[in-house]
Amino acid sequence: MEQLKFKNIAHKKGQPPGTLIYTGNKTDDYEIAVINYNSEEYCEHELNDIEECLPFIDSPKVSWINIVGLHKVDVIEKIGRFFNLHLLVLEDILNVNQRPKVEYSDEYLFVVLRMLTYNELSHQVDSEQVSMVLGKNFVFTFQERKVDVFEPIRHRIRNKTGLIVKNKADYLLYALIDIIVDNYFVILEKIGEEVEILEEDVLLNPSQEVVHTIHRLKRNLLELRKSIWPLREVLNVLNKDETSVINRNTAIYFRDIHDHTIQVIDIVETLRDMVAGLLDVYLSSVSNRMNEIMKVLTIIATIFIPLTFIAGVYGMNFKYMPELNWRFGYPMSVALMLIVGILMVIYFRRKKWL
Amino acid sequence: MEQLKFKNIAHKKGQPPGTLIYTGNKTDDYEIAVINYNSEEYCEHELNDIEECLPFIDSPKVSWINIVGLHKVDVIEKIGRFFNLHLLVLEDILNVNQRPKVEYSDEYLFVVLRMLTYNELSHQVDSEQVSMVLGKNFVFTFQERKVDVFEPIRHRIRNKTGLIVKNKADYLLYALIDIIVDNYFVILEKIGEEVEILEEDVLLNPSQEVVHTIHRLKRNLLELRKSIWPLREVLNVLNKDETSVINRNTAIYFRDIHDHTIQVIDIVETLRDMVAGLLDVYLSSVSNRMNEIMKVLTIIATIFIPLTFIAGVYGMNFKYMPELNWRFGYPMSVALMLIVGILMVIYFRRKKWL
Amino acid sequence: MEQLKFKNIAHKKGQPPGTLIYTGNKTDDYEIAVINYNSEEYCEHELNDIEECLPFIDSPKVSWINIVGLHKVDVIEKIGRFFNLHLLVLEDILNVNQRPKVEYSDEYLFVVLRMLTYNELSHQVDSEQVSMVLGKNFVFTFQERKVDVFEPIRHRIRNKTGLIVKNKADYLLYALIDIIVDNYFVILEKIGEEVEILEEDVLLNPSQEVVHTIHRLKRNLLELRKSIWPLREVLNVLNKDETSVINRNTAIYFRDIHDHTIQVIDIVETLRDMVAGLLDVYLSSVSNRMNEIMKVLTIIATIFIPLTFIAGVYGMNFKYMPELNWRFGYPMSVALMLIVGILMVIYFRRKKWL
Amino acid sequence: MEQLKFKNIAHKKGQPPGTLIYTGNKTDDYEIAVINYNSEEYCEHELNDIEECLPFIDSPKVSWINIVGLHKVDVIEKIGRFFNLHLLVLEDILNVNQRPKVEYSDEYLFVVLRMLTYNELSHQVDSEQVSMVLGKNFVFTFQERKVDVFEPIRHRIRNKTGLIVKNKADYLLYALIDIIVDNYFVILEKIGEEVEILEEDVLLNPSQEVVHTIHRLKRNLLELRKSIWPLREVLNVLNKDETSVINRNTAIYFRDIHDHTIQVIDIVETLRDMVAGLLDVYLSSVSNRMNEIMKVLTIIATIFIPLTFIAGVYGMNFKYMPELNWRFGYPMSVALMLIVGILMVIYFRRKKWL
Amino acid sequence: MEQLKFKNIAHKKGQPPGTLIYTGNKTDDYEIAVINYNSEEYCEHELNDIEECLPFIDSPKVSWINIVGLHKVDVIEKIGRFFNLHLLVLEDILNVNQRPKVEYSDEYLFVVLRMLTYNELSHQVDSEQVSMVLGKNFVFTFQERKVDVFEPIRHRIRNKTGLIVKNKADYLLYALIDIIVDNYFVILEKIGEEVEILEEDVLLNPSQEVVHTIHRLKRNLLELRKSIWPLREVLNVLNKDETSVINRNTAIYFRDIHDHTIQVIDIVETLRDMVAGLLDVYLSSVSNRMNEIMKVLTIIATIFIPLTFIAGVYGMNFKYMPELNWRFGYPMSVALMLIVGILMVIYFRRKKWL
Ligand SMILES: [Mg+2]
Ligand SMILES: [Mg+2]
Ligand SMILES: [Mg+2]
Ligand SMILES: [Mg+2]
Ligand SMILES: [Mg+2]
Ligand SMILES: [Mg+2]
Ligand SMILES: [Mg+2]
Ligand SMILES: [Mg+2]
Ligand SMILES: [Mg+2]
Ligand SMILES: [Mg+2]
Ligand SMILES: [Mg+2]
Ligand SMILES: [Mg+2]
Ligand SMILES: [Mg+2]
Ligand SMILES: [Mg+2]
Ligand SMILES: [Mg+2]
Ligand SMILES: [Mg+2]
Ligand SMILES: [Mg+2]
Ligand SMILES: [Mg+2]
Ligand SMILES: [Mg+2]
Ligand SMILES: [Mg+2]
Ligand SMILES: [Mg+2]
Ligand SMILES: [Mg+2]
Ligand SMILES: [Mg+2]
Ligand SMILES: [Mg+2]
Ligand SMILES: [Mg+2]
Ligand SMILES: [Mg+2]
Ligand SMILES: [Mg+2]
Ligand SMILES: [Mg+2]
Ligand SMILES: [Mg+2]
Ligand SMILES: [Mg+2]
Repeated sequence: MEQLKFKNIAHKKGQPPGTLIYTGNKTDDYEIAVINYNSEEYCEHELNDIEECLPFIDSPKVSWINIVGLHKVDVIEKIGRFFNLHLLVLEDILNVNQRPKVEYSDEYLFVVLRMLTYNELSHQVDSEQVSMVLGKNFVFTFQERKVDVFEPIRHRIRNKTGLIVKNKADYLLYALIDIIVDNYFVILEKIGEEVEILEEDVLLNPSQEVVHTIHRLKRNLLELRKSIWPLREVLNVLNKDETSVINRNTAIYFRDIHDHTIQVIDIVETLRDMVAGLLDVYLSSVSNRMNEIMKVLTIIATIFIPLTFIAGVYGMNFKYMPELNWRFGYPMSVALMLIVGILMVIYFRRKKWL
Repeated sequence: MEQLKFKNIAHKKGQPPGTLIYTGNKTDDYEIAVINYNSEEYCEHELNDIEECLPFIDSPKVSWINIVGLHKVDVIEKIGRFFNLHLLVLEDILNVNQRPKVEYSDEYLFVVLRMLTYNELSHQVDSEQVSMVLGKNFVFTFQERKVDVFEPIRHRIRNKTGLIVKNKADYLLYALIDIIVDNYFVILEKIGEEVEILEEDVLLNPSQEVVHTIHRLKRNLLELRKSIWPLREVLNVLNKDETSVINRNTAIYFRDIHDHTIQVIDIVETLRDMVAGLLDVYLSSVSNRMNEIMKVLTIIATIFIPLTFIAGVYGMNFKYMPELNWRFGYPMSVALMLIVGILMVIYFRRKKWL
Repeated sequence: MEQLKFKNIAHKKGQPPGTLIYTGNKTDDYEIAVINYNSEEYCEHELNDIEECLPFIDSPKVSWINIVGLHKVDVIEKIGRFFNLHLLVLEDILNVNQRPKVEYSDEYLFVVLRMLTYNELSHQVDSEQVSMVLGKNFVFTFQERKVDVFEPIRHRIRNKTGLIVKNKADYLLYALIDIIVDNYFVILEKIGEEVEILEEDVLLNPSQEVVHTIHRLKRNLLELRKSIWPLREVLNVLNKDETSVINRNTAIYFRDIHDHTIQVIDIVETLRDMVAGLLDVYLSSVSNRMNEIMKVLTIIATIFIPLTFIAGVYGMNFKYMPELNWRFGYPMSVALMLIVGILMVIYFRRKKWL
Repeated sequence: MEQLKFKNIAHKKGQPPGTLIYTGNKTDDYEIAVINYNSEEYCEHELNDIEECLPFIDSPKVSWINIVGLHKVDVIEKIGRFFNLHLLVLEDILNVNQRPKVEYSDEYLFVVLRMLTYNELSHQVDSEQVSMVLGKNFVFTFQERKVDVFEPIRHRIRNKTGLIVKNKADYLLYALIDIIVDNYFVILEKIGEEVEILEEDVLLNPSQEVVHTIHRLKRNLLELRKSIWPLREVLNVLNKDETSVINRNTAIYFRDIHDHTIQVIDIVETLRDMVAGLLDVYLSSVSNRMNEIMKVLTIIATIFIPLTFIAGVYGMNFKYMPELNWRFGYPMSVALMLIVGILMVIYFRRKKWL
Repeated sequence: MEQLKFKNIAHKKGQPPGTLIYTGNKTDDYEIAVINYNSEEYCEHELNDIEECLPFIDSPKVSWINIVGLHKVDVIEKIGRFFNLHLLVLEDILNVNQRPKVEYSDEYLFVVLRMLTYNELSHQVDSEQVSMVLGKNFVFTFQERKVDVFEPIRHRIRNKTGLIVKNKADYLLYALIDIIVDNYFVILEKIGEEVEILEEDVLLNPSQEVVHTIHRLKRNLLELRKSIWPLREVLNVLNKDETSVINRNTAIYFRDIHDHTIQVIDIVETLRDMVAGLLDVYLSSVSNRMNEIMKVLTIIATIFIPLTFIAGVYGMNFKYMPELNWRFGYPMSVALMLIVGILMVIYFRRKKWL
């Protein structure tokens, strides 16, 4: 049985607000990587210490600093100090069960998203927190584990394909959010395939196992829902364009992600309705099979019970039973049984049970 | 089993935003047709290359350019370049699983709709994307396959019937959207007929098959719902009249489509409620039939089991069983059986089972 | 089986917008009647041609022109021409499956309502479209069939009772809408009575027939709902008082109908909840009866099956069966049966089945 | 069976708006009582005629005139004439199935509430209409029957306890509404106790009767809901402070009732959820009992049917049946039966049915 | 059976508004403790009389006065007099079934929250009222019982950890609310664990007991919901920053609690959906087990009933039954039985029941 997603949510209780504690599972992954680019050149470095990123940020080019491994709390703390991030923002970065949200001050924009992965073995949707801080000419991204979700972005910067290198840091933020939302469609396609297989099972070959599949899919869809619904509000805020760090002509891009997010929500709700509908189909097929079973039992029992009774009567040992001595007593009794049996069959035919 | 509508939604993952890839199924249909008209004259041409449409657009008359076959990505790209369409708009034209939406700039209005067709063989509702771009004096329409949905519009232009030729390009856009929404009523009428047949089946002749019909209808209605709900928002935006390309006196026409869209939604929701109600009726009839079956079994078994027992007792082979030797032992045993049987029948009468 | 209310909705497909086609069932009813009144005098005429109403409208008195029979499309067309009504308004008058709506220009206010009638034979709620156009000093009403719903209004004008004759045309519009909404309460009272009878049936005498009644009531309530919900929005618009044809001191009257409409909606929703609840009660009573039936079968079968077995054993024909020759073999076997039977009865008593 | 609350709602159909007809049940209760007070003195009178209240209202003190018995339509009419109340307000006072509402003009504020009473015998919630008119220095209250709900208010005025006598007429209105809302908690406490008893019944001793109790509670809660939900909107309006007859410093008191109303709604919704949940618990216990019954039947039948068959075989009368003549045929057959029986028991143990 | 949370809600009926009566259960807990601090020093005192807190409040430092034991109504009354609190605020403090709310005047802010505790023995969520009054430089907190929920705050003040001592009274209010909301996560984690255990039970080992667990969890979640939903509105108000007692730079902290509250609501709704889903899984497993039981019964009965009939036929005592005298009558009858039995098994194989 998988662990519920809302476990460990409580272990910061009693701590003063702004206490920096990483609430996820500790991993060995740890890396600070910086990419510094404009439309003409780019460079890429792995850093030992977060201080090393400061010269990049002072350059007029766009800097993207990706931090993997949130158990290194002191790194997050230093970033907070250098870039003047609010203590509650740092806390949200480290509290990896955070609901998607956006927070902005005059100097930066802070976004929390949930990246979803589909575990092919357990057929479970897992979610991981990704935080981003957009400043004047830099973007920080914070990940728990080293996963390759952002690799296509790095690839585009290196090859100068797409619009990233032609735009400012706000476009980079857009590209990063976009790739996470695109990934939701991959998850949905996998769940969609599962729903399709389930549908076939329910219609052609229903067994109690389908209820467990339905239950698992419902849980996965609840998990998705919890991750995606708040994203809608996040993008509503980003679209409102009230922030000083997003340029006016980048707004249409954020509107595009908003559009995709609503499409994801639509699909999730449709899949929920379909899965709920499949439970109804399954339950009605269970009822029907029960009907079928009972009909067979009733037909057999109802035909033979009276016949067995007749046989029982002529199996009694009374001394004075005239029928027993009749020449055609036996064939007559058999005839009686046949008539009773045929009447029963006619009755069932009328009831359309046969 | 039909394919789920949200398959293939993920295959652009990792591509930079604005990458122009056609996400539909490739077809052989390919055609560029232009109609150039005003209230006095009109001409109609099939084009080999999209550049050929430029002279028409430069004329003061209204030009309607219909492009069939979205696999020709370079055509879409050229249109984007000539008419200054945003890359994300071009992407939406080609990404044919797009949710209905509207997007506008100072120069053009971009609308995505879903055209629905009812497959008479599979009783499936299929949906296809239709995109439209309204400029100052032209309308572009983009279709995946050559279907005759717009034929009545062409007919009206050729014959100068209706108001199209007396109005500007914005009225043409209205007429095109109107014909798509009118088509939804055709689909609803077909589903409505199916619901009527289903209703009769459920009330008069319920079998497990109706559950499959209910399931299919529910899926069709979900598909419709997904296509039509967002259309409401699209028309809300068009009604708000904030765009520079829609004339003030065309607004009442868009309000009329809005009105029809809400009526479509009402009917879809009513049909959903009816179909859900029919499942309840079916399930209660299954329960009732089970009751009926069990009653027959119980009556027969409950009457004959005690009688068979009595016969069994007098079928025992004990040496010393006085009744067996009584002169009227046999008729007395039969009388006993009759009494027990009659008591049972009286009991069932009281219970109103007979 | 009644016909679904959304049939025939599609038969205008492909027609240019504003095509004037009557979409209802043709009837022989056809009448144009005008009433011209002020607080001092009134006159009433039946007209042969719609042009004859023009002099009445030119008078400073209030004119109410009631048109029955919408198959006379040319009449509607002429009215449109004379009074400068928009083509889409004329279309809505003739498209008698229109959702309740309000539309206004500077010169007139157009309202579509649905009048409901309860068919006592089929226990079906039928709905018919009533359209109204309010101008400066006139009201047009359009009905499909000659029904007496407006008779009380005529009566009040003739007898100068009530406030109609003391007020302007806007009050007449109010009085006409009011009488239609009042009529909803009559329908609801009839359905309410049916629900009451149903409730008694379900609680005291449940049979499969109640499911059909529940289904019928649900459909009637859906029909009502579809007719009444949009009316709320219509009255919201009328209350907003943004129109030039409604006087400020008539507003309170429209607020009163709004109030009644909300009460109607409340009752419809309450009846829906009650009917849904009655299905639950019915289904639980089916389950209970099944339990009852199974208990009887189980008790009888479980008591007699072991007894019959014992009798069967002593009915075997083995040569060497010592019990058969015992002096008290028979009474002992009967005693054994009694003990087994009594133990069974005790067991059932404990289980509280007896 | 109780009468549905929405009966008689239709009997004013066809009457002109503002027709004053009392729609409730006629009673003998009839009384006009006036209390005239300020913080120093008070007097209390029973009036024969409504005109007698005029001198009290002309005094600078606060006057509370309570009218019991709405069948005296002429009294209501006179009040309307004296105090310039709108005809529709008078109609609402007499139409005692009115939904809670508020209506105000420049001179007065009109409030309709529903007072609930719990019938201890029928366990039914009944509702009665109470209307109030707040003027500059007077409050009119209209009741159908003489019930003592306002007695505590009179008591406080007589004894000068509480804040009533220190405040104006608007505070009196507040106190009157407050006592009606407080009374809802009494009703809820009674229904809450019933739900508690029901819960115990469902968990410990489920029988078909609980479904009827659930049904009754659901109806009572629907009745409450219908009376209380609109009250929220009434208080929203009163809180908005746009009226000239409510002083600014009385606003906090109305906010307090608003708060209580929301709490009542919360409790009603929670009780609805609980009652719905109890139906689920009951239905699952019915299913479980059925399972239990079927298990007993299956175990007994499945064990004994094969044994009875074996006995039947050796009860056959074939001339040549070697086993019958074996010396140990009988014990061997009994051993065979024992083995079959034990195998069956082992099978059921494995299935965990025993 | 636990007591419903909305009992005792009615016992103030008929009292004038603002009557100060404690509606909770009387306890012996009684304590008034004051903490007076700024960033440099702090002092802590237990008071005998509430007057003793006045000098602390006059000092420029922040004062936190915690009152335990609301049965001492006179203490609350005095506080009201000294600090000019509205009578309705005092009433809310003492009426401990109050819905979470916020109320503010120019001088103070009044907040009511519900603190939840999880009873490990009864697996019940209990809720207790905590009220807070924020003034210029002081905070009052009112608790019914002495529980240690605020101890971490005291600890932080004593040790000058965290930001409390560096901020004003509004930050103290924030810290107090924060610790109560943090505690909700503890409750949710416990219920989450229960849901996990329930899930395992339902999937692996379903018994009627799980329905009772589901019922209990539903009630707990309803209780949580009732306590937490209104908190959202409270924090919405606090975030709006319209109050004079909350500093602008404390606003982000209240936004943080708002964020957590929404997360709590999300988890509660997800748990509700999961618990509802588990009931469906359980009910389907009950249906399946019934199917299984009926299949066994039907197979055994249907195979043996015809065989027993055959044996019965040859157990009849007719004088003239040729088969009985055949040399191979017995083996032939056994062969007949075998054939019938094998046919039945084949039939069941086809039906996939075996
Ligand atoms: Mg949903
Ligand atoms: Mg939803
Ligand atoms: Mg939905
Ligand atoms: Mg939805
Ligand atoms: Mg759903
Ligand atoms: Mg559904
Ligand atoms: Mg719906
Ligand atoms: Mg809906
Ligand atoms: Mg609906
Ligand atoms: Mg709806
Ligand atoms: Mg529904
Ligand atoms: Mg329903
Ligand atoms: Mg509803
Ligand atoms: Mg409702
Ligand atoms: Mg509703
Ligand atoms: Mg409602
Ligand atoms: Mg409901
Ligand atoms: Mg319900
Ligand atoms: Mg609810
Ligand atoms: Mg609700
Ligand atoms: Mg609710
Ligand atoms: Mg609610
Ligand atoms: Mg529920
Ligand atoms: Mg529910
Ligand atoms: Mg919910
Ligand atoms: Mg909810
Ligand atoms: Mg939910
Ligand atoms: Mg929700
Ligand atoms: Mg659900
Ligand atoms: Mg639910």
